[in-house]
Amino acid sequence: MEVTDLESLRFLLDIALILLTAKVFGIIARKLHAPEVVGEIVAGLLIGPAVLGIVDQSDFINKMAEIGVIMLMFEAGLSTDMKKLKQTGLKATVIACAGVFVPLAMGAVLFMSFYGFGPIGSDQFIKGLFVGTLMAATSVSITVAALKELGKLSGTVGTTIVSAAIIDDVIVIVVLTFVLSAKGSGASVWVTMLKAVMFFAIAIITGFIVYKGFKWLDARYEHTRRIPIAALVYCIGMSYVAERYFGIADITGAYVAGVVLCNLHDVKYVERKVDVSSYMVFAPIFFAGIGLKVSFESMNPTLMLFSISFVAVALLSKIIGCGTASKLCKFKWGDSLKVGVGMMTRGEVALITAQKGLAAGLISSDYFTAVILMILVSSIAAPILLKILYKKHPSD
Amino acid sequence: MEVTDLESLRFLLDIALILLTAKVFGIIARKLHAPEVVGEIVAGLLIGPAVLGIVDQSDFINKMAEIGVIMLMFEAGLSTDMKKLKQTGLKATVIACAGVFVPLAMGAVLFMSFYGFGPIGSDQFIKGLFVGTLMAATSVSITVAALKELGKLSGTVGTTIVSAAIIDDVIVIVVLTFVLSAKGSGASVWVTMLKAVMFFAIAIITGFIVYKGFKWLDARYEHTRRIPIAALVYCIGMSYVAERYFGIADITGAYVAGVVLCNLHDVKYVERKVDVSSYMVFAPIFFAGIGLKVSFESMNPTLMLFSISFVAVALLSKIIGCGTASKLCKFKWGDSLKVGVGMMTRGEVALITAQKGLAAGLISSDYFTAVILMILVSSIAAPILLKILYKKHPSD
Repeated sequence: MEVTDLESLRFLLDIALILLTAKVFGIIARKLHAPEVVGEIVAGLLIGPAVLGIVDQSDFINKMAEIGVIMLMFEAGLSTDMKKLKQTGLKATVIACAGVFVPLAMGAVLFMSFYGFGPIGSDQFIKGLFVGTLMAATSVSITVAALKELGKLSGTVGTTIVSAAIIDDVIVIVVLTFVLSAKGSGASVWVTMLKAVMFFAIAIITGFIVYKGFKWLDARYEHTRRIPIAALVYCIGMSYVAERYFGIADITGAYVAGVVLCNLHDVKYVERKVDVSSYMVFAPIFFAGIGLKVSFESMNPTLMLFSISFVAVALLSKIIGCGTASKLCKFKWGDSLKVGVGMMTRGEVALITAQKGLAAGLISSDYFTAVILMILVSSIAAPILLKILYKKHPSD
Repeated sequence: MEVTDLESLRFLLDIALILLTAKVFGIIARKLHAPEVVGEIVAGLLIGPAVLGIVDQSDFINKMAEIGVIMLMFEAGLSTDMKKLKQTGLKATVIACAGVFVPLAMGAVLFMSFYGFGPIGSDQFIKGLFVGTLMAATSVSITVAALKELGKLSGTVGTTIVSAAIIDDVIVIVVLTFVLSAKGSGASVWVTMLKAVMFFAIAIITGFIVYKGFKWLDARYEHTRRIPIAALVYCIGMSYVAERYFGIADITGAYVAGVVLCNLHDVKYVERKVDVSSYMVFAPIFFAGIGLKVSFESMNPTLMLFSISFVAVALLSKIIGCGTASKLCKFKWGDSLKVGVGMMTRGEVALITAQKGLAAGLISSDYFTAVILMILVSSIAAPILLKILYKKHPSD
């Protein structure tokens, strides 16, 4: 029997503090012409263990944040312009590949120039590859939020970034499996690839059926609560199934669920309802949650130096990899830079990857600090740079 | 470092299952001309340990449910008609008193007729009083949901019920402190009373300031997100402060926060945004959560007989107490019955009270089954009876 007792009401205070500071700092950020999402992350940094320490991340906050990022990616899927998605599909694949392999190589080189080079196949080499993998996993949710704020999410650049990030996620999972299996732990690379392919195959087949079902609902019960609720259930279900049974990130499942429903007649209604739930409670918790994760407790000069190099290489390698690939795909310079910057955001996937590497003995726990800094810096820098780039080089 | 790992994604499945079944059974209930909320409770009963056992209540679900009931009571506060609240204030006080003392007496008599009478002040007598206290705590959230569905929440009867329930809550806290201190545990009755009075005094004083602040916001930023978010922060903050520092139930704090803002120019906008967040995620989890709590594992014939008597006395004593008091307050027969039925719903407060009694050695854990059954039966019966009563005896 679990009864919520007085002690555990602490979660209410946490939520109130997060929502309040996130909104206030979001408004301040906007006054400074910076994206609101940056203010919300800074709010988390400020009230979290890094500065004031009045709110700690807790299991409850983490779960609420996870729902927040799932809603965000679902909304991105819902606002997809199917025609643009098809047009940009091939380009997105090329960009995703470059966005994985350039950071992978540069990360490996960074590691080995700090800790010594090793021949191909050696332990040192595999460790280097793993550090590269840590840099490869894009998590585009912050970019999605920034693009949404700019009203550019379903433009050509926006669509390219989001679909490239989805493909990136799949490639990284395969690379990660490869590296872990080279170290003798983890599943077979073929099984991982098969599972990823199966996920998309099943998502497409069931997607058609689900879409038909929603069209039927839509025709009979337009603008009733049951449609957005059913859509949210489908989104959460897909997130769960993707991660639990296919090893695909839950946010990818949520995005795919959104794409399945993006042509629905009532899609704006669904989006609006999900959006209200998201911005009233879940999204601010997700954004502030990024700042809450940061703590400088275990910081020392060497770790600091490595962390800074790690973050610099992580951000630059994505911009170089994805930017160059975009340019090769005939994007203009300005748009290529936008794609590069948009792809440089990292998120939880990097943390989960780091945890797997720790379990497999590939890295020490010191790396968590570097990974969290990478998430924080990229999450703050990307929205600001995107805003500037869209101002300097307007596009759809 | 807490990272949401694959294992803990279980919470996503739980939420998807709860939202799906709650909506489906809500629709089925409506087809059967029963209130939707009854369907949602039955959904929880079905998927919970009582029947299928595919979803267990967890700490996460409990916390989400708590936010759900807080939002519900906040909405009730927001939709308050201040004039009606003032008109019905005195009547509500009389009804609340009857609604506490009739169940208190009948509960004590029930206990002593099962387990033997004892003289005033004896251990047996105090135990009886405690069982009576268990029956005294009204939790009006289900009634609020039922009245909202009927569109009668801010009518005279609706206003009377909600304000009587708030007063009931305060009286029960004082009675509980009295019983616990008679047993030699718990705080002093005077301190408890003083804290309750202080809560309302502080709520009124700060309420004026908060209302001024919101009016200023409202004038400058009408229909912007910051207003509903600030309102939600105030609501959650009040819930926390009420329970943490004044021993008043969190839902009472939420209701009071709603009343403070009920005259705001933009109140409908705030209500709508809170309502979307509530019905999309939190409220169904709260309703289904009631069903999820039920389990028949430890059931045996004696316990069954006692539980049934307990539930019957609990429900009847509220109807008799509050119904008679309403009649004395010049309500019509039909409306008096509505008030009695509306006041008979019980909720978490009864569970929390039971837990305190267990800790003080006043009852055995067997009582939890009876208390949960009382919550379940009252939560299902009250909305159905209210719907019938409003049909037979229409009123505002």
